[in-house]
Amino acid sequence: MNIGKEQLANMDQRERAAFINSLGGFKSLVLIGTQSINGQSNLAVFSSLFHLGANPPLFGIIVRPDKSERHTFENIQSNGFFSVNQVTEFFYEQAHQTSARYAREVSEFDAVGLTPEFWNDYPAPLVKESRVKWMAQCREVIDLKINDTHLVIGEMLEISYPEDCQSPDGWLDLEKAGTVTVSGLDSYHVTSQLARLSYAKPDQPLKKL
Amino acid sequence: MNIGKEQLANMDQRERAAFINSLGGFKSLVLIGTQSINGQSNLAVFSSLFHLGANPPLFGIIVRPDKSERHTFENIQSNGFFSVNQVTEFFYEQAHQTSARYAREVSEFDAVGLTPEFWNDYPAPLVKESRVKWMAQCREVIDLKINDTHLVIGEMLEISYPEDCQSPDGWLDLEKAGTVTVSGLDSYHVTSQLARLSYAKPDQPLKKL
Repeated sequence: MNIGKEQLANMDQRERAAFINSLGGFKSLVLIGTQSINGQSNLAVFSSLFHLGANPPLFGIIVRPDKSERHTFENIQSNGFFSVNQVTEFFYEQAHQTSARYAREVSEFDAVGLTPEFWNDYPAPLVKESRVKWMAQCREVIDLKINDTHLVIGEMLEISYPEDCQSPDGWLDLEKAGTVTVSGLDSYHVTSQLARLSYAKPDQPLKKL
Repeated sequence: MNIGKEQLANMDQRERAAFINSLGGFKSLVLIGTQSINGQSNLAVFSSLFHLGANPPLFGIIVRPDKSERHTFENIQSNGFFSVNQVTEFFYEQAHQTSARYAREVSEFDAVGLTPEFWNDYPAPLVKESRVKWMAQCREVIDLKINDTHLVIGEMLEISYPEDCQSPDGWLDLEKAGTVTVSGLDSYHVTSQLARLSYAKPDQPLKKL
């Protein structure tokens, strides 16, 4: 099946959203925890997280200000801190439910049944149920004028993960940690490892690690 | 296990790269096909693709100019077109092998054993073996000065996918299409669907679709 720009433009809006979101492949699924200046907690699900660099440890997320994500963005702009929490099979339905348009005075933690956790004096809640998570500080916001979205660049400040999921070479076994992935807008998946592959060099065969 | 900024800074460079890359979760795995102005094909594996918007159909990738990705970036800048090809279980090892530092005059298609395919007059090769793929045009390059990377924003021009993998509502079943996902720098995974969940609304229970 081949479709071009014109057919895409003529597609029903919801169908196009479901289709184009699917093309993004299997995506990182995280809950982002923030807090407003008057202490109101917020929790929102994101599938746009991507790695930017390891030193300093930077990542990006895309925020759409017209969605349930707008409270997250306002909070990040007001105090600069936010938590990132990977989602497991045991609470992916609650994670999905945070995408409902709750009123500003509702904490999604209460609404969906997840437990806030605080680290030191950081003004942002983490998700107790999450096994791989970190506290981040916003380093830069870049407005993507091409479609009125925002790129938030965060630096990892403190990271928590199950020690028995880490290999001696630093790699984390997310499958063992129970992390799930999302495709499209609403399809959730667990994974099954094919292999880890050795560092690629020209004219050398790959090895399975 | 909890680790902070100072421990991260003191970590061995390779260990930190493996660790921080793992925190990005399960990621979209694609091969990007480009062509230089003198017709030399290039193919490079990326795990930073993310959805930006459905109308117009936009996505982003992060390019590190110090890596094997530099030829890709040069080609995109010189002619503006590139192909994006999802990776399946049948050629993930070849996809990984494209990350080796081949000389500029080597086509990774030949080096790893994948087949270039051309659509109309677009000056960029696609991967014949890929089942979900599209031709893209670069709309914007944003320099991320914070760590000397580049955000390339592409628009989808023409998309190819197996018709029997699409639901009536537009969603593509990537699992059925055989698309794989990557975690960290080198771990490849197939997926197993938990469920698709209905559109979330406050005070309404979710349904499995």
